[in-house]
Amino acid sequence: MDRDVERFFEECPTNSSAVAKVQSFIQRQQDGSGALIRPIVCVTSGGTTVPLERHCVRFIDNFSGGTRGALSAENFLEAGYAVIFLHRRHSIQPFTKGLPSGQILDFMTSVLEPDEGPQHGMHVSESASELVSNCVQRAQDAAASGMLLRLPFETLFQYLQSLRAIAQQLRPLGRHAALYLAAAVSDFYIPWPQMVEHKIQSAEFGEGFHLELQKVPKMLGSLRHVWAPEAFLVSFKLETDEKLLISKAQGSISKYGVHSVVANILETRKEIVYIVHPGAKNGGAAQVDEVLRGQEQFIEAPLVAKIVQLHKTYLGGEQ
Amino acid sequence: MDRDVERFFEECPTNSSAVAKVQSFIQRQQDGSGALIRPIVCVTSGGTTVPLERHCVRFIDNFSGGTRGALSAENFLEAGYAVIFLHRRHSIQPFTKGLPSGQILDFMTSVLEPDEGPQHGMHVSESASELVSNCVQRAQDAAASGMLLRLPFETLFQYLQSLRAIAQQLRPLGRHAALYLAAAVSDFYIPWPQMVEHKIQSAEFGEGFHLELQKVPKMLGSLRHVWAPEAFLVSFKLETDEKLLISKAQGSISKYGVHSVVANILETRKEIVYIVHPGAKNGGAAQVDEVLRGQEQFIEAPLVAKIVQLHKTYLGGEQ
Repeated sequence: MDRDVERFFEECPTNSSAVAKVQSFIQRQQDGSGALIRPIVCVTSGGTTVPLERHCVRFIDNFSGGTRGALSAENFLEAGYAVIFLHRRHSIQPFTKGLPSGQILDFMTSVLEPDEGPQHGMHVSESASELVSNCVQRAQDAAASGMLLRLPFETLFQYLQSLRAIAQQLRPLGRHAALYLAAAVSDFYIPWPQMVEHKIQSAEFGEGFHLELQKVPKMLGSLRHVWAPEAFLVSFKLETDEKLLISKAQGSISKYGVHSVVANILETRKEIVYIVHPGAKNGGAAQVDEVLRGQEQFIEAPLVAKIVQLHKTYLGGEQ
Repeated sequence: MDRDVERFFEECPTNSSAVAKVQSFIQRQQDGSGALIRPIVCVTSGGTTVPLERHCVRFIDNFSGGTRGALSAENFLEAGYAVIFLHRRHSIQPFTKGLPSGQILDFMTSVLEPDEGPQHGMHVSESASELVSNCVQRAQDAAASGMLLRLPFETLFQYLQSLRAIAQQLRPLGRHAALYLAAAVSDFYIPWPQMVEHKIQSAEFGEGFHLELQKVPKMLGSLRHVWAPEAFLVSFKLETDEKLLISKAQGSISKYGVHSVVANILETRKEIVYIVHPGAKNGGAAQVDEVLRGQEQFIEAPLVAKIVQLHKTYLGGEQ
């Protein structure tokens, strides 16, 4: 294993508690003989935080509400996958799109119904009822089916520890497991040993202030070749500069051997994404497939459909 | 006005749209003759973001869920104040404590009631009903009373622009206005002219990476002496190191002339806060009052009660 990756985990301040939950979740997807009933995908979602102090008051964050991850998780569930949803705490959850947290007070109405006994009579307003009803029903179905495991993270440290633990647990499933890395993970951080203990005092930094950040070791190689070598690996590229997008996506394939890269531009990411993959020809050049939202409500429907298709092709290669 | 403060606002990328809303809100708190019916407080809440790129993918954030601000706003409303709630978007809102966003799916139940016509029959589960009912009722009362104005911000730029606009609108109210600055505002930032256009490429920063940040000009002096010289000004100090806390709070009084500083330690902030103020004796030394949560559900009840009392004393000084 990469020495930098090893050192990263040695220095990590916290330990992941995900292992036991993931183990029993995987067991639930197996029949009495231990055979897998359905494929399992780990969908990561939301941004990681990078603490600037050990008693953390300030941190660097990545822009990500978690919409891509949450909607993708829904679509994987509908395609028959069991889903491990590794998400930033308080990011958007599957089946809650259209129910923003701030608006909860707006769609509830208090109806006093003294005739009906000791009920408090809180109802969803008429206008919002269909939307809320639909979301709640789908979420309850997913919970009841035992096909959705939600694991939260906050810091970069927690995210990478959980991702490694999940990948290692998925390893025995071979090609039937998939990793769909939609989370926005920081490229740089302050290693725990170099981190100051207390809140950085503004008096200490005269007019200017230098923050020394280090590169986060690239984990894609370890994930692909060590943690879960057979799992179908989908990584993401988000850029704001169109000129760099496809070449950077191709780099992830040639450097780390990922199976597909979902490449998108910040401003247009809800309308168009590119799926870059080695393709059928295997002539050296990567294939780029364009996915458009089209008439769908959300682009994650055709996006996940395409990924599921690529995963099926990959599974077929096993026989 | 301070030249640094002036330059900060000249360079700001966006403009505040708060002015019109604040104007009509203030009018609603006045009777036909223009006399003020009740005092008005601006409560700021949540952390500011500091963008690292103009097309913002990464930003520095401050740890703050906004609980202090949201609960304080509730208590000011109950004390008869009109409240301008200047809050980080998606931070905790007044009357929603106990209703975390992620749990919305857990307290709703879908009840099919075919007899009752075209209703979708979404109800709050029995177990959560009293809590939800209480929160929704109080929020609806506040909205109906016209005594709560909610204004969101995201970046440091938006926050300071809105704060300045609000303070300038409150200026004519003299001592009857108060500013209660519970938001966690960044001390450092990258000025817009120095900010890169696109996402910082990790390839550009070899092994390490230097982020050049500048001090945010101190606005408390301008707020106190220029924007709203008579308004009762309450600032906050959050530290993780107890040794620095009180002396830093006293510094805000001697340097900027704020009327009270709420000083708290990150780990114990829900149990104990210190209110530092010039005191009755006026013998040069600031007075430190300890506020404990005690038997109250939240410490914001005794905290706001103490601030209201100090504001009353300050108002009395006008006669």
